[in-house]
Amino acid sequence: MVKVGVIGASGYTGGELLRILAGHPDVEVAHATSRRYSKTRIGKVHPNLEGVLDLEFEDSTVADVARDSDFVFTATPHKTSMKIVPTLLNAGVKVVDLSGDFRFKDVSTYERYYDLKHDHPEIKAVYGLPELHRSEIKKASLVANPGCYPTTSILGLAPALKAKIVEPERIVADSKSGISGAGASPKTETHFCMANESVLAYNPAAHRHMPEIEQELSSFDGNVKVSFVPHLVPVNRGITTTLHCFLKERASEESVRKFYQDFYKEEPFVRVLEVGEVPRLSSVRGSNFNDVGCFKIDDERKRLIVVSACDNLVKGAAGQAVQNMNLMLGLDEACGLDTIGLHP
Amino acid sequence: MVKVGVIGASGYTGGELLRILAGHPDVEVAHATSRRYSKTRIGKVHPNLEGVLDLEFEDSTVADVARDSDFVFTATPHKTSMKIVPTLLNAGVKVVDLSGDFRFKDVSTYERYYDLKHDHPEIKAVYGLPELHRSEIKKASLVANPGCYPTTSILGLAPALKAKIVEPERIVADSKSGISGAGASPKTETHFCMANESVLAYNPAAHRHMPEIEQELSSFDGNVKVSFVPHLVPVNRGITTTLHCFLKERASEESVRKFYQDFYKEEPFVRVLEVGEVPRLSSVRGSNFNDVGCFKIDDERKRLIVVSACDNLVKGAAGQAVQNMNLMLGLDEACGLDTIGLHP
Amino acid sequence: MVKVGVIGASGYTGGELLRILAGHPDVEVAHATSRRYSKTRIGKVHPNLEGVLDLEFEDSTVADVARDSDFVFTATPHKTSMKIVPTLLNAGVKVVDLSGDFRFKDVSTYERYYDLKHDHPEIKAVYGLPELHRSEIKKASLVANPGCYPTTSILGLAPALKAKIVEPERIVADSKSGISGAGASPKTETHFCMANESVLAYNPAAHRHMPEIEQELSSFDGNVKVSFVPHLVPVNRGITTTLHCFLKERASEESVRKFYQDFYKEEPFVRVLEVGEVPRLSSVRGSNFNDVGCFKIDDERKRLIVVSACDNLVKGAAGQAVQNMNLMLGLDEACGLDTIGLHP
Amino acid sequence: MVKVGVIGASGYTGGELLRILAGHPDVEVAHATSRRYSKTRIGKVHPNLEGVLDLEFEDSTVADVARDSDFVFTATPHKTSMKIVPTLLNAGVKVVDLSGDFRFKDVSTYERYYDLKHDHPEIKAVYGLPELHRSEIKKASLVANPGCYPTTSILGLAPALKAKIVEPERIVADSKSGISGAGASPKTETHFCMANESVLAYNPAAHRHMPEIEQELSSFDGNVKVSFVPHLVPVNRGITTTLHCFLKERASEESVRKFYQDFYKEEPFVRVLEVGEVPRLSSVRGSNFNDVGCFKIDDERKRLIVVSACDNLVKGAAGQAVQNMNLMLGLDEACGLDTIGLHP
Repeated sequence: MVKVGVIGASGYTGGELLRILAGHPDVEVAHATSRRYSKTRIGKVHPNLEGVLDLEFEDSTVADVARDSDFVFTATPHKTSMKIVPTLLNAGVKVVDLSGDFRFKDVSTYERYYDLKHDHPEIKAVYGLPELHRSEIKKASLVANPGCYPTTSILGLAPALKAKIVEPERIVADSKSGISGAGASPKTETHFCMANESVLAYNPAAHRHMPEIEQELSSFDGNVKVSFVPHLVPVNRGITTTLHCFLKERASEESVRKFYQDFYKEEPFVRVLEVGEVPRLSSVRGSNFNDVGCFKIDDERKRLIVVSACDNLVKGAAGQAVQNMNLMLGLDEACGLDTIGLHP
Repeated sequence: MVKVGVIGASGYTGGELLRILAGHPDVEVAHATSRRYSKTRIGKVHPNLEGVLDLEFEDSTVADVARDSDFVFTATPHKTSMKIVPTLLNAGVKVVDLSGDFRFKDVSTYERYYDLKHDHPEIKAVYGLPELHRSEIKKASLVANPGCYPTTSILGLAPALKAKIVEPERIVADSKSGISGAGASPKTETHFCMANESVLAYNPAAHRHMPEIEQELSSFDGNVKVSFVPHLVPVNRGITTTLHCFLKERASEESVRKFYQDFYKEEPFVRVLEVGEVPRLSSVRGSNFNDVGCFKIDDERKRLIVVSACDNLVKGAAGQAVQNMNLMLGLDEACGLDTIGLHP
Repeated sequence: MVKVGVIGASGYTGGELLRILAGHPDVEVAHATSRRYSKTRIGKVHPNLEGVLDLEFEDSTVADVARDSDFVFTATPHKTSMKIVPTLLNAGVKVVDLSGDFRFKDVSTYERYYDLKHDHPEIKAVYGLPELHRSEIKKASLVANPGCYPTTSILGLAPALKAKIVEPERIVADSKSGISGAGASPKTETHFCMANESVLAYNPAAHRHMPEIEQELSSFDGNVKVSFVPHLVPVNRGITTTLHCFLKERASEESVRKFYQDFYKEEPFVRVLEVGEVPRLSSVRGSNFNDVGCFKIDDERKRLIVVSACDNLVKGAAGQAVQNMNLMLGLDEACGLDTIGLHP
Repeated sequence: MVKVGVIGASGYTGGELLRILAGHPDVEVAHATSRRYSKTRIGKVHPNLEGVLDLEFEDSTVADVARDSDFVFTATPHKTSMKIVPTLLNAGVKVVDLSGDFRFKDVSTYERYYDLKHDHPEIKAVYGLPELHRSEIKKASLVANPGCYPTTSILGLAPALKAKIVEPERIVADSKSGISGAGASPKTETHFCMANESVLAYNPAAHRHMPEIEQELSSFDGNVKVSFVPHLVPVNRGITTTLHCFLKERASEESVRKFYQDFYKEEPFVRVLEVGEVPRLSSVRGSNFNDVGCFKIDDERKRLIVVSACDNLVKGAAGQAVQNMNLMLGLDEACGLDTIGLHP
């Protein structure tokens, strides 16, 4: 059994890591840290784990966690990860970091969008989207787990950009996320009465996930520019991203779908739907799938619409992190990730 | 008191017309028709009107309604309106039609998007968006009430197009609507368990409201082309539309907002928010306001984001219809439309 | 115009008072205080009031508010009201207090359930449920506005107890409240992801509203004992209370309903539904109605079920407070309270 | 591999059976029937099963299903089950029936509450609540799977009644169910706009689950009488039942909890929470747990409050059915039932 530590285990992503790890046959949760809930039974914070994972949160030091873990997930905020990860790597522990700290190839992009000086520009991570970087992930000591919005956006756009059928500088990505994406801390915006019966655009044209999407997609076709606007919608889990693309020239819907099918034909966690089928959140709720569908074309206006969806806490965070761990440890990539979506 | 008839009064739009008319000081509801609910007390279908509007639905003929009404709203489906409206006009009754049947200047556009031959291409209506066509509405016998999506989209784009600062052929309108927009008839897609915890794009790149938006906006700046994708989100009422525009050249956010303020400075029902403020559905819920805000610019990507929101059943349907009626009858435009939004 | 002050105007009840007062023809909001939002435009906190009520929150002293108000609402927490109300009364201002501080005839009950010593046991208020205490309210200087749960419970039980058909010591009141009842401050329990897709009993068998219900109902039939359990359900507004009663002897459903009809026949804000009809939250949402219905009897088990519902922020708080103000000032009781419920 | 048939596989319960069976290591789905969706890919109706269970619905006869199935679930409506089950039993197939048809020991109770003559009063089934009838279930050919409301109610009351501490004739069970409990067919009451922002009591004092609860509980303490009122609340899945009991004499909360702990100490799927802890729907969502908690006592009013919750589609239906199948087939009782609840 691989001994795994989760640093920052009391938030929604931490809880989801624990849920998945509790059902993973090859690992054992050795540490789950939380300063705030130190010595509290895990089931008090994540009530679904009551009677399932019989542990307490602890307030161990990073060095302590490193000492008796074979693998560590840092589910810590950006800036905190930056300080913790070097200690773990130096102790020879492999790490998946779920913050934004190590996602950027170009540190100056990070520093601009996070408005922060990076302490460790010398540490290089692999961007943890297995569909794009599987072979590098297998060899990596540090994987930067993608953001939730980038996961749907990149998976929804990569085949079209690789096929060079859409204008790379004119992508529009309009995302709708469940409220769990805003974190577990109570805030005015996440108060039930503010979020319910509401749809709210936030950080329009300035969100930190925008340059992350552009970095990854630019490897396919030139200098990708994305107009990205995220919205909070009144659901607990799930992200749907509607991708409005301008076609370079005429294309048929079936031929576009074919690019996607070919791109993802070996992928265990990307489902390519039929033309006209739009992904449902209930298809992916709780599961590690990202579904891509729609593929509708408006010839007159030269537009292609693709819709991409996943559970923001699973394929958009904890599930993908475990998928990366499996790859880094040489386990079956899908191990522990067999929860079927909950519909309805 | 003006005697008003509502044909098709048992749906959500019909119910909302009755709610507003019940509180209107200058009118009296003379007829509320519904074939399905004939002889049923209105409060059985619209429970909020129990004890407020003491009437039964009736199954009167159009001729009967015409005979003793001074004004009629046709809250009937497209194709049905087409058959009813001529009778009403011939009887000398003024009409606001809430279907799509009379919204298009070019009948061929109608016939293409509604996949239907128009019986009365000779009947001309005024497009009932007071902010664009107030003076013609005042003189009209027939007003075609705008669709709910077009209301937010047109009001959110008209000032920018008039100012000629955005590329007219590259507009992206991504709309999120409450489920009441899908009508009161039970369908699989409107079953609670399908719509709840869900976000669903529908009719992507093919919705009938798209050419309606383009028709109205093309009067401002060339040949407007809109990539329009509507979504159902799990709220009862309200539409939010995020408008992604490509700037022709650099502009400041405040200057853009100024175009909007100037455009709407005399308008009783359009509120222009501050730069960075995004409209909330709770601001407009139950009220006749359409709020326009955001105005964020991403200089690097040359994008302008505008967000526009209204209550789809009020400013997006029944409220705007009453606003049109007020104008057509020479009443105060805002009469009966003073419900303040319900927040939270 | 009566000059009205609202102390504690930034919470949900405060916002609802401002919404109702903004539409009241005979009053003018002279002061709206909030320490936290001092000098902030009201529309920033209550976005529905943007452009409707052009005021800022102020951090005035109670004495300042008293000086130039004819009437004051204290929408302050218990314990705070206790300190403020005497100053207002001494200044000759009439007051409706929306906290629990002055609701109890027997101060020891208050002190036990609120775990607090009362500073002013000498100050006597009238319990502000017009359906029970209208004539005293008209003469009062201080009215203690009922809690939201007691409003539905008392109105749903009073006629049956007055008719002496149910066992007074065996009442079960099971209430379901929208989340706005938990206040506007962000807390773990009101985080969207905790409250959504959830139903949560809280303060079972210990809620402060229980003795309030018993106090008022005991005037009808002996020593009423209520097993009261409130629940939070994922809706913004509205309370439904299901009242399970044990019949003393056989009764017919129609005869029970007749007791209710007779009891409420002159009441402007209580609607008695038909046997078998259950109140809907959409019937009362935003309105000052309390609906009472169901009246089903299970002969074999000798049970009577009554269901009672209102909008917790209107008839359960701000609307009832304005109804009381109208009575205290000699205005038409229903003045400013004509908002029709929003359905759907 | 045991070959399993699901008759009536397109509803919510059918879909949930397929989800659980798809992850069950010892069974294989041989048949999934649906007249309406015959020849449709299962993933079109249950989108979570796309790519997971590669089957089509079929319109096979019962005899066909019987012929090549070792075990059959009848997820059919009452009255239909009555006609199908005899054929299956005669073919030597073991059956779990999920309708109400075989739940009653006394056929006259069935006939009264279902308003129907029973065709096969001679067929005897075991009531499929393993916590009460495990040893009989193991030997049964036909198990009648409990209703969703009875599951929470019986599990929440059995220990208290066995301990004889509460008055058996005065139980009040107030249940709140997610909308999936009302089935997948679109109806006015399950339209999103009717169910959302709503709480609705239905079938008060007349629901068919009431006598089922009484039948099972009467084995513990006399002639149990339950005042049962179910409510629809705006959540997809989950049932919470608040049980208001009248204590025969004083008791301590901890001693009451002890009765529950003892009663359920060997049970794999019942979690007994601490005094004051109330079950959350997110603890049980998707899982086969039923949580029981609260145990608060109001000495003055001699009331005990117990709250019991499960996922209505899992422990309240499909999960319990699979638990029964495991017992009937001699498999590990918990096999295939290891989905952990989804929180949030």
